[in-house]
Amino acid sequence: MKNTYGSSVAVTIFGESHGEAIGLVIDGMAPGIPVDREFIEAQLTLRRPAGKISTARQEQDPYQIVSGVFEGKTTGTPICIVIPNSQTRSKDYAATRALARPGHADFTAYAKYHGYEDYRGGGHFSGRITAGIVAGGAVAITALRGKGIEIGTHIARCAGISDRPFAADPAADIAAVQKMPFAVLDEQAAAAMRERIEAAAADGDSVGGVLETIVTGLPAGVGEPWFDTLEGVLAHALFGIPAVKGVQFGDAFDLIDQPGSVYNDAFRMQDGRVTTATNHNGGINGGITNGMPVLFRLAVKPTPSIYKAQETVDFFRGENAQLQIHGRHDPAVIHRARVVADSLTALVLCDVLAGRFGTDWLAEA
Amino acid sequence: MKNTYGSSVAVTIFGESHGEAIGLVIDGMAPGIPVDREFIEAQLTLRRPAGKISTARQEQDPYQIVSGVFEGKTTGTPICIVIPNSQTRSKDYAATRALARPGHADFTAYAKYHGYEDYRGGGHFSGRITAGIVAGGAVAITALRGKGIEIGTHIARCAGISDRPFAADPAADIAAVQKMPFAVLDEQAAAAMRERIEAAAADGDSVGGVLETIVTGLPAGVGEPWFDTLEGVLAHALFGIPAVKGVQFGDAFDLIDQPGSVYNDAFRMQDGRVTTATNHNGGINGGITNGMPVLFRLAVKPTPSIYKAQETVDFFRGENAQLQIHGRHDPAVIHRARVVADSLTALVLCDVLAGRFGTDWLAEA
Amino acid sequence: MKNTYGSSVAVTIFGESHGEAIGLVIDGMAPGIPVDREFIEAQLTLRRPAGKISTARQEQDPYQIVSGVFEGKTTGTPICIVIPNSQTRSKDYAATRALARPGHADFTAYAKYHGYEDYRGGGHFSGRITAGIVAGGAVAITALRGKGIEIGTHIARCAGISDRPFAADPAADIAAVQKMPFAVLDEQAAAAMRERIEAAAADGDSVGGVLETIVTGLPAGVGEPWFDTLEGVLAHALFGIPAVKGVQFGDAFDLIDQPGSVYNDAFRMQDGRVTTATNHNGGINGGITNGMPVLFRLAVKPTPSIYKAQETVDFFRGENAQLQIHGRHDPAVIHRARVVADSLTALVLCDVLAGRFGTDWLAEA
Amino acid sequence: MKNTYGSSVAVTIFGESHGEAIGLVIDGMAPGIPVDREFIEAQLTLRRPAGKISTARQEQDPYQIVSGVFEGKTTGTPICIVIPNSQTRSKDYAATRALARPGHADFTAYAKYHGYEDYRGGGHFSGRITAGIVAGGAVAITALRGKGIEIGTHIARCAGISDRPFAADPAADIAAVQKMPFAVLDEQAAAAMRERIEAAAADGDSVGGVLETIVTGLPAGVGEPWFDTLEGVLAHALFGIPAVKGVQFGDAFDLIDQPGSVYNDAFRMQDGRVTTATNHNGGINGGITNGMPVLFRLAVKPTPSIYKAQETVDFFRGENAQLQIHGRHDPAVIHRARVVADSLTALVLCDVLAGRFGTDWLAEA
Repeated sequence: MKNTYGSSVAVTIFGESHGEAIGLVIDGMAPGIPVDREFIEAQLTLRRPAGKISTARQEQDPYQIVSGVFEGKTTGTPICIVIPNSQTRSKDYAATRALARPGHADFTAYAKYHGYEDYRGGGHFSGRITAGIVAGGAVAITALRGKGIEIGTHIARCAGISDRPFAADPAADIAAVQKMPFAVLDEQAAAAMRERIEAAAADGDSVGGVLETIVTGLPAGVGEPWFDTLEGVLAHALFGIPAVKGVQFGDAFDLIDQPGSVYNDAFRMQDGRVTTATNHNGGINGGITNGMPVLFRLAVKPTPSIYKAQETVDFFRGENAQLQIHGRHDPAVIHRARVVADSLTALVLCDVLAGRFGTDWLAEA
Repeated sequence: MKNTYGSSVAVTIFGESHGEAIGLVIDGMAPGIPVDREFIEAQLTLRRPAGKISTARQEQDPYQIVSGVFEGKTTGTPICIVIPNSQTRSKDYAATRALARPGHADFTAYAKYHGYEDYRGGGHFSGRITAGIVAGGAVAITALRGKGIEIGTHIARCAGISDRPFAADPAADIAAVQKMPFAVLDEQAAAAMRERIEAAAADGDSVGGVLETIVTGLPAGVGEPWFDTLEGVLAHALFGIPAVKGVQFGDAFDLIDQPGSVYNDAFRMQDGRVTTATNHNGGINGGITNGMPVLFRLAVKPTPSIYKAQETVDFFRGENAQLQIHGRHDPAVIHRARVVADSLTALVLCDVLAGRFGTDWLAEA
Repeated sequence: MKNTYGSSVAVTIFGESHGEAIGLVIDGMAPGIPVDREFIEAQLTLRRPAGKISTARQEQDPYQIVSGVFEGKTTGTPICIVIPNSQTRSKDYAATRALARPGHADFTAYAKYHGYEDYRGGGHFSGRITAGIVAGGAVAITALRGKGIEIGTHIARCAGISDRPFAADPAADIAAVQKMPFAVLDEQAAAAMRERIEAAAADGDSVGGVLETIVTGLPAGVGEPWFDTLEGVLAHALFGIPAVKGVQFGDAFDLIDQPGSVYNDAFRMQDGRVTTATNHNGGINGGITNGMPVLFRLAVKPTPSIYKAQETVDFFRGENAQLQIHGRHDPAVIHRARVVADSLTALVLCDVLAGRFGTDWLAEA
Repeated sequence: MKNTYGSSVAVTIFGESHGEAIGLVIDGMAPGIPVDREFIEAQLTLRRPAGKISTARQEQDPYQIVSGVFEGKTTGTPICIVIPNSQTRSKDYAATRALARPGHADFTAYAKYHGYEDYRGGGHFSGRITAGIVAGGAVAITALRGKGIEIGTHIARCAGISDRPFAADPAADIAAVQKMPFAVLDEQAAAAMRERIEAAAADGDSVGGVLETIVTGLPAGVGEPWFDTLEGVLAHALFGIPAVKGVQFGDAFDLIDQPGSVYNDAFRMQDGRVTTATNHNGGINGGITNGMPVLFRLAVKPTPSIYKAQETVDFFRGENAQLQIHGRHDPAVIHRARVVADSLTALVLCDVLAGRFGTDWLAEA
């Protein structure tokens, strides 16, 4: 399998940036989950470019649910969502297609597909494909919410500026970030990040950062020791988000110099439940949830499409070349990637939970 | 699937630390790969505890290849390797089984398996299981070597000390680290790391660090955009190595504050091949190899089993408790985890390459 | 996975009879396969109802290829084909939805989906879904044809009438049946079958039969001993075709009373190749092709939707009931199922061959 | 995946007839299932050759459960069962290895594995591998029994003699056949079958037949419409049993000349449950169980190894040749294959049920 992920709840994506449409199929979602079109639209809006810190391309994402939903609820059969493409300016691409954009997939797509790839606008590698994941992920988020599971992601760091961490009791923070177009908990940090993004844009450059995701409400005992650790299963999918180059659970790289006596999370009883005093392990021990919030961070590299002139090659001619990118590009995608992380996380968790507790569990009262 | 990973070449592991045996099945390896028993033994030796910085438990790993090898070569049918357990001291475990070791899987195993788990010595969660991966991985390493693909891993950081990076032409470094019991390129760094490990041991504590792996010789065009990015496929497996809590490709978290103009790797022709001037992306663009060395780093948390007294719970009684661990434990596992990373990487790459080029490719001249 | 089949080339289907659209995604098809829209249209026509022996519902199947094809060739990324529904008369279904049609999936769908299923016109269980398989299968048939592999299916038996078998040199027979709307080699048998279908229709009843498929040009050495025998892999998919209740390779049930000395196919050299004198094993030994034509037969039960009054239950009320079906129904589907068998066989063989020889093999000259 | 089948409960097999050992790994079995060694032994005895109608090779099958079982119950982690080989006479095989036994996998193994295959005694293709499936299947049968699900298989036809069908209330028949070494319901039919097997043996020939399996106690609503129909999922695995060349559910080929009004199974309420008056569909509609017994038949071809002289080829030399087989061979395997069918069916059903109702369901009271 290549473009399909998951087993009990499987996601298949399709589409190219400048083809007819992009979309996805979700197979195995429990029957009876409400499909809230306003919520889907709200989620798509969070992904949509907006303002000075995004591309000028206006995407309306007029999605169609062509199967798997009947009378406002999931049927249990495959949900196919199609988002037609429009506003595509394709003519410019042919001339420069062999000039590999550094950091982008032009050359590797060519190496893999031997020139048959649809190269226009990044083709199948375009971030546009994530719109389908967001639309489908909205259904997964609704399903999880029905079981008391909430997902929140904020921009923990961007362009050298750090946000504050989630509060010890994260419910309010999660509710807040879920609706923010620019999901930063600390307003001053948010302002400083925006400033730096705008400065990079002005400079024809781009910035990256770190997303931090928290998941609350997962029961203990979910995940596997080998090889389907919850870490591995989530990371596998998350590395599919364009620009994600690192995934860590809990503190990992950030606490790696500390000894075991610091890194270990002491267990303690609280309100009759097993909890931990700290959460350096991100809520997962031995690949399995321990009942604490699951916490992970994603390294989102700077958008590779920048306006500054770059050294590259023409891979048709096998010659060095100079590249000057035109068109519409984001100086940062991290704020748009945020809702993609939430959506994909929700889809993967639906898969893991349906595998653990059965195909109907997500819809049970 | 839980304990099986891979599709064209699939690995299934089994076993508990204090059961009859541990082992693995490798299914789909090309027929005709030489099986070098001396090499397998040498690899197992690299994983075996040795000296002051390891556990006192002596493991002889008298592995048996019970299927899939005939007249010294792989047959193409499943290779099953069984490593019987011995030297197990099981009697002590029952008394303290409900005292969850912080950072370990005792509680999560209980939450998942409802008390039926073999809790002795970590059971199925024990690092001992990785001996099978090392034995099987040796066959995969041999297969890749036949195609000019080499894997090397060093301890990039341990207990706050950093090793030097791989040289720009890494062939000599790779050859060197492949045989080192304590794989550090810089001798002074190695000495300093050992010192800190011994100090932690003396203190009843443990240390962690960062492993860095390099893979050379992979052709361009291997991997998928969604969801089987080479990053995702490798990370999924690598998170199965006990104590791995983070995986990054190229510089990721370490370069996340830099702009796109720095992060992007400029392409350039060299000796008629497309290469990049830097390798911040770890040899992968859009999930697909670009022909540069694949580079990744693993955050290996400190061994959770420490001798210092720890706060915990008794999950049978639902009470807070104090834990004082006895027995034989490693103050660091990173130097032993190194050959596991190599082995698992080799197995995953065999899977990816057999999927890309066919089941016989690895054995073709 | 539920609605996805295959690994190297995977097919995902979606859609309901009276929903927005039906369709499929083919993932992993080699880049560079020509996509011949006239051929797709011709294949869809073979599946379309026609004449007195089919339903009166006219389906135009205005399919759209929304991804994975660029400049007339496959790109190597997922091919999504969407076929919008039209001509649906949905209003009648609600009243009788709880009256389980005998032999149909109304009750089992209810047992599985708890009433959330789209029950209109068979919903996701409708034979209409196979239109997507035919459209997508046309691409697979083209790919196989490029490698010298041809698939032909005829109605070996229908309503008690037998067709003659494929000729020993089947090339002409295959070419002939591939274009026949009613694929019977013997004209007299064809006429007799049509007569019986019309008689059944007049009687408000339906008929079934046996399809026989032949595949020529497959190299020896394709398939696996356990569990991915070529028989098992094909049968798994073929049982998905509505009304297929039996699959046999070679003579199987038909020759089961004969001794081994008859059943065994003697090997002999012919033109420098290993062949067999007979083909009772259907071209497969030990799950693996032997280079002879692959031959299998499908038992296609009579269409369950008949006009005769039937005893059944109302599963909402838990009461016995009488059922009188109205609407448009086929007295036989075997002639329409034929091209579905070809198409699905082609898709499965593309998967098996891409797994065996690599992702690009199907497109190689 | 090749030698692994299943998703929620996955089976991986390994081994060669004359290698060190054969065996299997079962991954995903619910924790807490009792492992009854007497029952495993009894099941292995049913597969073991016995008397005049079997090979003279005595197999003791001294199986070892090397993992996944603790204190007499499954742990939830992979169960690995190893059965060492003994009593192997390997020396004779090299001389005749290139003489392809008709109906056997010698030539196809060579085509697939290029001569690296372990050709001794059928290697990985040997029926001996099924001993592992029987040992592991015993655990699955126990798990199903705990949920009220029973499996019984009889020899419905052998060498031209038919057994009587299962009684309408099959419980007593199932209990009876489960313990019979030669599972035939009608004593006279059994005697006649044995006679014909002995006659074939005397003639240096072999016979085949039809196995019929019934499964009672499955809830309605299990299975999928596409592509994981219960028929397809079972058939995929069952075609892996050596000599199985056909699989049909319900009456299929046997009732194919009848019209829909006969083939359809009328629904009716009985004791508050939905049942059917007949069971021509084998308990499955639209790929999903309807609550009636699941019924299927397997065409088991005659054992290919016969003593009569046969025409064949020497595939090393590419020449026609004569083959005279010596050694120990069964004139019939159908009575031994019977318990393999039960065992594999049980393993597949555990997979399907764990996927439907969750990983713990099989062990729940």
